[in-house]
Amino acid sequence: MRDADLTPLLRPASIAVVGASNDAAKVGGMPLRLLREQGYTGRVYAVNARGGDVQGMRALPSLDALPEPVDLAIVAVPAAAAPHVVAQMVRTRTRAAVLFTAGFAETGEAGGAAQREIARMASAAGMALLGPNCLGLMNLRERVYATFSPVALAGAPPLGDVALVSQSGAFGAYAFALAREAQLGLSHWITTGNEAGVQVADAVEWLAHDPLTSVILVYLEGCADGAKLRRALAAARAAGKPVVVAKVGTTATGARAAQSHTASLAGEDAVYQAVFDEYGVHRADTLEGFFRLGNTLSKGRRPRSRQTAIVTVSGGVGIMMADRAEALGLALPPLPEACAARLRESVAFASTANPIDVTGQVVAQTGVLTDTLVDAMTCGAYGSVVAFVAGAAHVPSAWAAIEQAVERAMAHRKHGEHGAPSEAAQLVLCGLVDDTQRSWLEARGVLALREPVYAMDAVAALLRAGEQADVARGEAADARGLDEATEPASSMLPSSVPAHAASLDEAEAMAMLAAAGVPVAPHCVAGSVAEAQAAAQRLGCPVALKLRSRHVLHKSDMGGVRLNLRDTAALARAFDAIATSAAQAGIPGGFEGVVVARMLDGWGEIIVGVRRDPVFGPVAMTGLGGTGVELGRKMAFGLAPLSHERALAMLETSGVAALLRGHRGHPALSLDAAAAVLAAVSRLGAALGETLDTLEINPFIVTRDGLVAADAVVTLHPQGDSRNEA
Amino acid sequence: MRDADLTPLLRPASIAVVGASNDAAKVGGMPLRLLREQGYTGRVYAVNARGGDVQGMRALPSLDALPEPVDLAIVAVPAAAAPHVVAQMVRTRTRAAVLFTAGFAETGEAGGAAQREIARMASAAGMALLGPNCLGLMNLRERVYATFSPVALAGAPPLGDVALVSQSGAFGAYAFALAREAQLGLSHWITTGNEAGVQVADAVEWLAHDPLTSVILVYLEGCADGAKLRRALAAARAAGKPVVVAKVGTTATGARAAQSHTASLAGEDAVYQAVFDEYGVHRADTLEGFFRLGNTLSKGRRPRSRQTAIVTVSGGVGIMMADRAEALGLALPPLPEACAARLRESVAFASTANPIDVTGQVVAQTGVLTDTLVDAMTCGAYGSVVAFVAGAAHVPSAWAAIEQAVERAMAHRKHGEHGAPSEAAQLVLCGLVDDTQRSWLEARGVLALREPVYAMDAVAALLRAGEQADVARGEAADARGLDEATEPASSMLPSSVPAHAASLDEAEAMAMLAAAGVPVAPHCVAGSVAEAQAAAQRLGCPVALKLRSRHVLHKSDMGGVRLNLRDTAALARAFDAIATSAAQAGIPGGFEGVVVARMLDGWGEIIVGVRRDPVFGPVAMTGLGGTGVELGRKMAFGLAPLSHERALAMLETSGVAALLRGHRGHPALSLDAAAAVLAAVSRLGAALGETLDTLEINPFIVTRDGLVAADAVVTLHPQGDSRNEA
Repeated sequence: MRDADLTPLLRPASIAVVGASNDAAKVGGMPLRLLREQGYTGRVYAVNARGGDVQGMRALPSLDALPEPVDLAIVAVPAAAAPHVVAQMVRTRTRAAVLFTAGFAETGEAGGAAQREIARMASAAGMALLGPNCLGLMNLRERVYATFSPVALAGAPPLGDVALVSQSGAFGAYAFALAREAQLGLSHWITTGNEAGVQVADAVEWLAHDPLTSVILVYLEGCADGAKLRRALAAARAAGKPVVVAKVGTTATGARAAQSHTASLAGEDAVYQAVFDEYGVHRADTLEGFFRLGNTLSKGRRPRSRQTAIVTVSGGVGIMMADRAEALGLALPPLPEACAARLRESVAFASTANPIDVTGQVVAQTGVLTDTLVDAMTCGAYGSVVAFVAGAAHVPSAWAAIEQAVERAMAHRKHGEHGAPSEAAQLVLCGLVDDTQRSWLEARGVLALREPVYAMDAVAALLRAGEQADVARGEAADARGLDEATEPASSMLPSSVPAHAASLDEAEAMAMLAAAGVPVAPHCVAGSVAEAQAAAQRLGCPVALKLRSRHVLHKSDMGGVRLNLRDTAALARAFDAIATSAAQAGIPGGFEGVVVARMLDGWGEIIVGVRRDPVFGPVAMTGLGGTGVELGRKMAFGLAPLSHERALAMLETSGVAALLRGHRGHPALSLDAAAAVLAAVSRLGAALGETLDTLEINPFIVTRDGLVAADAVVTLHPQGDSRNEA
Repeated sequence: MRDADLTPLLRPASIAVVGASNDAAKVGGMPLRLLREQGYTGRVYAVNARGGDVQGMRALPSLDALPEPVDLAIVAVPAAAAPHVVAQMVRTRTRAAVLFTAGFAETGEAGGAAQREIARMASAAGMALLGPNCLGLMNLRERVYATFSPVALAGAPPLGDVALVSQSGAFGAYAFALAREAQLGLSHWITTGNEAGVQVADAVEWLAHDPLTSVILVYLEGCADGAKLRRALAAARAAGKPVVVAKVGTTATGARAAQSHTASLAGEDAVYQAVFDEYGVHRADTLEGFFRLGNTLSKGRRPRSRQTAIVTVSGGVGIMMADRAEALGLALPPLPEACAARLRESVAFASTANPIDVTGQVVAQTGVLTDTLVDAMTCGAYGSVVAFVAGAAHVPSAWAAIEQAVERAMAHRKHGEHGAPSEAAQLVLCGLVDDTQRSWLEARGVLALREPVYAMDAVAALLRAGEQADVARGEAADARGLDEATEPASSMLPSSVPAHAASLDEAEAMAMLAAAGVPVAPHCVAGSVAEAQAAAQRLGCPVALKLRSRHVLHKSDMGGVRLNLRDTAALARAFDAIATSAAQAGIPGGFEGVVVARMLDGWGEIIVGVRRDPVFGPVAMTGLGGTGVELGRKMAFGLAPLSHERALAMLETSGVAALLRGHRGHPALSLDAAAAVLAAVSRLGAALGETLDTLEINPFIVTRDGLVAADAVVTLHPQGDSRNEA
């Protein structure tokens, strides 16, 4: 079944308020009041079973009495009456509904069943259903106020191109009030509540195609349909629209508060982060940062490079900004010599390194401020210029100098230096500016921020947005990982694996990895001492003996691993010891033999794995290995299959790249080769589909010849294995 | 020589402006204008060599012409004239001076020499000298405007108990403007510039004893006198006054911008952090956070426990706050059952776990809001209550409910439940409140913040302040590490160490550690194969052989280490190999033998060290060990000698505690014992005084019997070794 079109919900030409109340403060009264006070220009009908006069309108007794099928019904009736109203809507071919009514899934199982029934009816009729238990929506430009929140009564934020989608109504209402205060230009405000029909992802996808929206802010507690969210984020990226997410429930405590029931809570947030990384989603962890990012991405242009100039009237603040620039990975090359010479001529003690310290002198010599800003913006050396001017904008002559600099840079953009069009650097002005000055600046693509540190953050956010737009241009359509993995999962498993097996033994896991192109340690299976000795001779000593069993995942914990064996006597002792341990442990199926593997000569260990997330599917991970390391380890996660670029990025963020680059005098390994191995493992994990539970290669040894897998554990979801069930 | 008293500088009874100008916009005119416009009540004199009329005052030709020695001279003369004016001040027994004049150390060596001469003259005369190259100071309460910054013309922030000390003038001026906007109550504003005389630390120490200051904000680029800064921070803590520091130059880029020349830049910031940790200094990394912390610590009371209640009208925002609470280490126990039952009776769907979700219903049932807040504040289960009320304070009935809750909690505080005085929990209100409401709340010790995440941060900051006050109460005076280490450093070194040695050999290092009570691996020195074999028999195999030489710090890099030797043949081979390597490397002094050490049976490695910081003295450090670990390692730093508590805290932050607690099924070790070992190493490092360069124990093996040092490198500052120079 296809998802319903959200256009009648978000841009309705006609609206009926069902359960319309004469009391404008009530849930059924507020939307009617808002629609009329705020100047909605479509047709509005009041529906109330008791009929009569409602806020000066004649109420119709039911939707059936309407002269037309409406685009949108706003429903404010008790939970018990809701199914009846939904039936009415279906009958009258109402195209979309906002259901404020509480008392559904949030109250328990009975409410959940009622909600599912309503959702089924709406879905069958192709109706877009927002709610239940939501605060509704606003389309500010077309003045669609389908909400009972009184927050809109105190006035709306300015019209703009930033849309807000919130799972929580109360969060949404507070955010609306804060957006109004911060004068953030909004296009839409949508709260999804229980999400019986329309999910956050549906709203994001619709907004991705809405010409009046260019930035999408999302408040997310959880997501039931990972594929849909990924599709929506891909659509937003393809449309060049940055998405900013405030995802709550990031810690165990928070997730408990969000009533999450996943076993691995910290891991869950890492998976969301992997999704956000995949689609270049911006993440905010404060409300203030949420709106700041929204405004930055809405008003700022995308810098063409990471090269950033800091122009400052204060050395101290310049240092503060340089600290943040380094933390954000921005580059601070010095002012080109021609410009630097000009500056030094005017202000002898100016620093022309970067930060470019023009000193407080520019308030007296305002021409220096103009010239330096124009030079930095137009010399071609910088993608962005962040100018800290403290209180100078309150000095009329200094403000005039800033205006002049902006205008000269804009003229440069239009004409270019050699006739060809050439883009001036993005300017971020940091200091005290009043609202009029801010508007003047923003209208010219100049951001104004008060906090020097956040001015640097703004540059980094704009760069990220620009990079994502480049990625989107490079991809015809981003459905990677969603439509792939069509090869039947069973064919990836070694034929020796019985149906419904819960895991592979080590030999099977290694064989599967080798078949997928992953380098593995040379190894054989051996059922007797003699076989083990023959294998060791073939492989070359020293070798390791490891218990072969699909029933023991942590072999060393039960004495199933012996390392560094160098001669036949040691081999025999080790084989017997493992057999004895296996017998004592009473493993199912009894002792089946060992894996003999050549010891690898390496100088480091990493871990690579894939696990299947119930919402988002296969997730690849990597990190440094070795005993004790996990205590401080930073694992990196990415959606499987990984692109080569994502695999490279994961090697960097996990610290693995630093190990491979020639740590402690060891030879440097090819990062591209390592990324290729990581990507190959991720492809295998993705290809295993629902069969896979987890695949963990630990340790992956760092050797002179590259990464080589020394051990692997693979666990399966027997229910996902369909070989004997087709 | 004792430091000059800052009272005449910061609370002068009389002021002379030297270089007074008739033009109030000029450097010599602005202070005169400000002093008179802003209502300074002390005596003011204008001094100008040309005499005449200055802003309506008769100018005297020099300080000699004054009828009295003044407390403070504000000096606005060119650099060339400055020494002359300083001589005048000394002659006329002027007690303090603010020297605005630029052109000293910041311009190069000649300026530096001139500055040192001025500083010498002032110091000899016991005069407090602020500057040169500074923006001066303001004592807002007593209207001392000894500044030429026009920032004060636009009005002052409200009077308050927060003092601001800034090394940078421009930073200070911007901060002043922002403080005015944020309505942060200020007591003093002090910029120290080139710090020829008064340093940031001097100002902090004076403010620590100023009865009108209770919070000290510090902007710091660097510190030349570590002991003085430590003394100042200790004084502030002893006085129960929190210090908030914005330390810039934290990254290599930023430090380069700050023209720092330390070799290990990242390390330098870690040392500052160790200083801040030692004295419970709060650290801000944004200007906004700097003032927010100042206001929080000025207005909020100290919670009596980490138990925190989150009361929220929005489940979503509650989750956001719970996430931050966990990250901050706050505890969120559920509402006690009696209170929970009462809440559920009123609002059936309320959540009485923590976050306590009272739902938007409280706007209709305002009594529930009052009761829940009073219950949470007075039930005794919480040290703090953070209440997210969204826009409810704009609804008159809901605001009345909040007022009532605050008043009831205050009454509870006065009377107590059982007659005994009992403190209600600290309340932090989060949501939209207007200025009048904010003032009303703050006057009652209730903080009001708009950002839910920052509301949690405020609780954590107040807890930290409370803990530091407890520490201060527990310490008679915090001069630890400053007046200790009086034992002559030479006595700590083994007698075998020659004078001016640059390092110890391993046997010497181990002997020194053992003498200091640090457990070391059983070991002997051996000069021949036979001696090594005898030693191995005595110690028990397996053993390690390690080259003994004070000239080779990284023995394994040149083949000087052989591990896991189990028999006499292996020992002989290893001994010969090491001797050969030593000969090939041509180490000074030739081959002197080996250290034979028993191999330790452990399951993890840590690193412990002490290095001497040129500014702050000995700094102890610890972190996880092992190859590859350092790539992701988080070292913890602390000033040596460490208290037991600091040592424990370092074990936690470095991840070592997690390893010791019984990682991967290994037995748990006593953290107290490990902290005692870390503290013992730190005491040894501190006792070595200036003799020590670095002391690094790597690896420190985690064994069943505790931490045992397996190798140590000690390097010395020969110039710090005074044994043969006394």
